[in-house]
Amino acid sequence: MQHNASLTTPYAIRNMIRNEDYTGSTSGFVPGFVQANLVILPQRYAFDFLQFCQVNKKACPIVASSRTPGATSIPNVAHDLDIRTDIPRYRIFKNGQLIEEVTNIKEQWRDDLVTFLIGCSFSFEESLKLAGLEIRNITENKNVPMYMTNIPCESAGIFHANMVVSMRPMKPADAIRAIQICSRFPDVHGAPVHFGDPAAIGIKDINRPNFGESVTIKDGEVPVFWACGVTPQVAIANAAPDFCITHSPGHMLITDIQNAHISAF
Amino acid sequence: MQHNASLTTPYAIRNMIRNEDYTGSTSGFVPGFVQANLVILPQRYAFDFLQFCQVNKKACPIVASSRTPGATSIPNVAHDLDIRTDIPRYRIFKNGQLIEEVTNIKEQWRDDLVTFLIGCSFSFEESLKLAGLEIRNITENKNVPMYMTNIPCESAGIFHANMVVSMRPMKPADAIRAIQICSRFPDVHGAPVHFGDPAAIGIKDINRPNFGESVTIKDGEVPVFWACGVTPQVAIANAAPDFCITHSPGHMLITDIQNAHISAF
Repeated sequence: MQHNASLTTPYAIRNMIRNEDYTGSTSGFVPGFVQANLVILPQRYAFDFLQFCQVNKKACPIVASSRTPGATSIPNVAHDLDIRTDIPRYRIFKNGQLIEEVTNIKEQWRDDLVTFLIGCSFSFEESLKLAGLEIRNITENKNVPMYMTNIPCESAGIFHANMVVSMRPMKPADAIRAIQICSRFPDVHGAPVHFGDPAAIGIKDINRPNFGESVTIKDGEVPVFWACGVTPQVAIANAAPDFCITHSPGHMLITDIQNAHISAF
Repeated sequence: MQHNASLTTPYAIRNMIRNEDYTGSTSGFVPGFVQANLVILPQRYAFDFLQFCQVNKKACPIVASSRTPGATSIPNVAHDLDIRTDIPRYRIFKNGQLIEEVTNIKEQWRDDLVTFLIGCSFSFEESLKLAGLEIRNITENKNVPMYMTNIPCESAGIFHANMVVSMRPMKPADAIRAIQICSRFPDVHGAPVHFGDPAAIGIKDINRPNFGESVTIKDGEVPVFWACGVTPQVAIANAAPDFCITHSPGHMLITDIQNAHISAF
């Protein structure tokens, strides 16, 4: 009982992850707190990447970043954070190729690494649920469907990509409410970027997502599309930097930042 | 007549400025279009500065930035932009000291310079006026009063500062409307950061601003404080980079971006 109670705080979960007592997905963990995508790059790529995120805010909203190359913590994000151990599972890339998946990056750590945390749709899905909207991927217990589009991001240095979007089907009235709610959360992708005809943004078959799983679209529903945090991963794959670390999909950093705290208004 | 009509477009004004036919303040020019603060820094400071702006968005909202060191234009900002000539007046700083004020920077230009455009309160003042609110500094034809506060910005690399705020007195009902309206404009400082007691944010005498001019506060009004774009200038003065170029106060870049286009919702 004591044990379970303590796991209701982000700090307790991070400690469990740090000790490698848990190495699984963080989906659904500690409702109410921001979970973040991780990108770690050598300092020489840091300006280009930060600029790519800055000019493509909807797809790549920066929640926080380390302030000194080699720093393993980030101000105002998580108590006693050690970015090398506090995420369940990491991916190591060399020249754009996935080399290995590991449960800590103590051996891979270098003094020139800069850490970026990028907002994740878990936060706005929670706000939509609180407003009584159904999130189909949650109802169907699936990973949200994600699609490559023909919407070009702005390029910055070596980083370029078309936008990746996630899709949630909704009745028009619910879509309108979702647009209102998500407008309050620019740091986790903000309002949708499109609804309706998938072909209008270059999606050939709505039933064959490029990432995640297909979900049911019922009669009277329209697909609603949000800019997706997989976009920076595509930009990194395109740029193929000689070294990069990310989280493994679904294995996020659980921060001490409350979802309610990041609303714009 | 032909001449005046043509000056209703940002491009026409920029051309007049490029030709040095006009070297004055841009206040009130081409209503409806975003005017931007200018910061130009050598590439080696660019990451720290972009990160400082990113973690202090309210005070330092980045509107756009050049994508390649030495580039004299910026994508999606202004047709045929040449950042070396299209601003009426520039300030050259060396080691944090103002060296000279010039009307173009063709001689000072270097291949390692990166340009940042930062949002300016002209945009939200226009939205407030359209909503029928009185802006006291405009009514009294004064530069808005600005104050150093004790609100610390987050530091990034060499850049650190306390927040500078601008102040507009309002009746509470108008302040509430202003909070709603400005929430829609996170890229030009967003919602206010404080209202009421100046001492609560470290302002000793509301009648003695650190920058700009004092304005009348009438009975029944409260001072309302917004994060101010002078903050990055204080951060630059504190950091004293060996080289830096800014616009001269009030002598802004007039972009082709419409104020309405930068609203978050």
